[in-house]
Amino acid sequence: MVMVTSGHLADGRQILWFDEGSEPRLVVPDLRDLPATASTSEQRWDPIVGEWVTVASHRQRRTFLPPVDQCPLCPSAEDRRTEIPTTDFQVVVFENRFPSFSQQATVPDDGVTLDPRLYHRERGHGRCEVIVFSDRHGETFATLSPGRVRLVIEAWAERTEALNAMPTVAQVFCFENRGAEIGVTLSHPHGQIYGYPVVTSRTRVMLENAGRYREATGRNLFADVLASERSGGRRVVASNRHWTAFVPAAARWPFEIHLYPHRHVPDLPATDDAERAALAEIYAEILRRLDGVYQVDMPYIAAWHQAPAHTGREDAYLHLELFSIMRAPGKVKALAESESGMGMFINDIAPEHAADLLRAYRW
Amino acid sequence: MVMVTSGHLADGRQILWFDEGSEPRLVVPDLRDLPATASTSEQRWDPIVGEWVTVASHRQRRTFLPPVDQCPLCPSAEDRRTEIPTTDFQVVVFENRFPSFSQQATVPDDGVTLDPRLYHRERGHGRCEVIVFSDRHGETFATLSPGRVRLVIEAWAERTEALNAMPTVAQVFCFENRGAEIGVTLSHPHGQIYGYPVVTSRTRVMLENAGRYREATGRNLFADVLASERSGGRRVVASNRHWTAFVPAAARWPFEIHLYPHRHVPDLPATDDAERAALAEIYAEILRRLDGVYQVDMPYIAAWHQAPAHTGREDAYLHLELFSIMRAPGKVKALAESESGMGMFINDIAPEHAADLLRAYRW
Repeated sequence: MVMVTSGHLADGRQILWFDEGSEPRLVVPDLRDLPATASTSEQRWDPIVGEWVTVASHRQRRTFLPPVDQCPLCPSAEDRRTEIPTTDFQVVVFENRFPSFSQQATVPDDGVTLDPRLYHRERGHGRCEVIVFSDRHGETFATLSPGRVRLVIEAWAERTEALNAMPTVAQVFCFENRGAEIGVTLSHPHGQIYGYPVVTSRTRVMLENAGRYREATGRNLFADVLASERSGGRRVVASNRHWTAFVPAAARWPFEIHLYPHRHVPDLPATDDAERAALAEIYAEILRRLDGVYQVDMPYIAAWHQAPAHTGREDAYLHLELFSIMRAPGKVKALAESESGMGMFINDIAPEHAADLLRAYRW
Repeated sequence: MVMVTSGHLADGRQILWFDEGSEPRLVVPDLRDLPATASTSEQRWDPIVGEWVTVASHRQRRTFLPPVDQCPLCPSAEDRRTEIPTTDFQVVVFENRFPSFSQQATVPDDGVTLDPRLYHRERGHGRCEVIVFSDRHGETFATLSPGRVRLVIEAWAERTEALNAMPTVAQVFCFENRGAEIGVTLSHPHGQIYGYPVVTSRTRVMLENAGRYREATGRNLFADVLASERSGGRRVVASNRHWTAFVPAAARWPFEIHLYPHRHVPDLPATDDAERAALAEIYAEILRRLDGVYQVDMPYIAAWHQAPAHTGREDAYLHLELFSIMRAPGKVKALAESESGMGMFINDIAPEHAADLLRAYRW
């Protein structure tokens, strides 16, 4: 049972408390004196690569690794008001103060004109939310209780449904990550939820490939990849009744894990109660295994791939792609030339070896 | 006038000295006791994203930020033998000891079978070369003399031609970069030259877009982008008689500069003498402007986009894409979730503002 309580921050942004149980939460007003958020964000079409690029220059001012006693994601106290007005919370979602996309976004009035035969320029419409997993600054996703992970899953599902219903949103992206090595600018355990105004290029390519595969075979590409991994077993890292986690055969990153539900569903809102309970368990197991490899907190990015709001919903298959850029303790795979310049990934760790290391960990 | 002298290192790898002038160089034998390089490298096809991924697990052992007195790219001395046997040099190219691709690469004998209905697995055939720009450890590309930059350009052109002629090579990628922030593991000024066994996904996409544009308009996409930037001028950073450098309208990175020759040529070997001389000048100017923005040595990646060896040579247009991940002093744009997970780049600095900053620098 999840209780959702809605409120607003001082500058008008929405905030939502997700609590276990059926008790409504008393909403405390945000008493800060906040300037209204002005968001100049635009989408520009790159005709050479065929992708939208977002330019959100107001984000340069955003908070960058503040000291612990100024963390904006901690609960508020009498003498210090943060982004969350209450003195405690379980899971909280609120609109980002420095959003890359927003429903009010405007193209900056900068006199720039782009050649219309080559470029398009659109408002950076959409939505950016922050999801905070705990009111305890020192936690990470890996140390959350099973009940709390379940609550996060409920919040992801609820927000995916809510953002998909917004007219400016074409695709919802829930992600969470850890580690300053990968650019996390606030260490308090949190993730983000993006409502993109367009279908992203990676999702578009995946769905094009899945569409061609369906036409050629009559089957679902993602389901066949999952079936191949489950029957082979060589790269499976963890599994339970409803989910299987494996290192993909063509892994790009030193430690990469893909987590699929056994049932073909387009997104998190389509998962049922049993699947969500099983997800909370296996998610925690994956993170424990990842940290077990070198007995250090591994920096990672965990990205939920969900069907777009309006297109490709038949071919899309919900799954999590989680990867770490750490290839050995103290050695981080940086953004290298071949990957960033040419899209050719070079992985120094064989996927089967990574699976062995992830499977070997016992606790 | 460039003199090229060829030799071999102790383990059989090729080494080439590029010297200004017409004097042949006395080849000094490499007296080290080196084990033969065994390279297990393979290409795996990812059916979901539709890209080849390279798995080169032997590379985990490679040299990582050694102390200055153990730099393998410094010239050899009586008491210390490096990768370059001579006691001085100008520009040197040699085969990488830890190559991601090689002509002898084998698929590891690991018993792994991949479902042939979904995956392909090929040898990581190709070539990886290191190019060293100076025998002085403390130099960077930005501090090289104009004559030395010109010599590097001659070496890039010669190697592009040589690697394109190898039967295992489908595309040649010359790049150079600077800064530990972007994963440079050796600080001695050097770049790399990759001979890929396949056309990379980014090049494939670019050429597909250029092909569609040609069919729709009869014109070249890259040439039209260049013409649009030259006529508008809003994002031009530097130019001379033969080259124009600009911040692209849909820049992905905080500071991104694209450098095009005015004449449509497929690759560096196709440039003429005057174009190479003008390139040496403007390349140095771009790097000076980049470092001038914050008065610090900016970490950067400079990637040469050239036509593949055998395909798309009509549509391809030689150009350099140079970018820095530094968005402010001490603030690096890390590999973030939207970019790595979804292919959606979010840039915090408007391209026009970046161009203003790059143009403003005077020296």
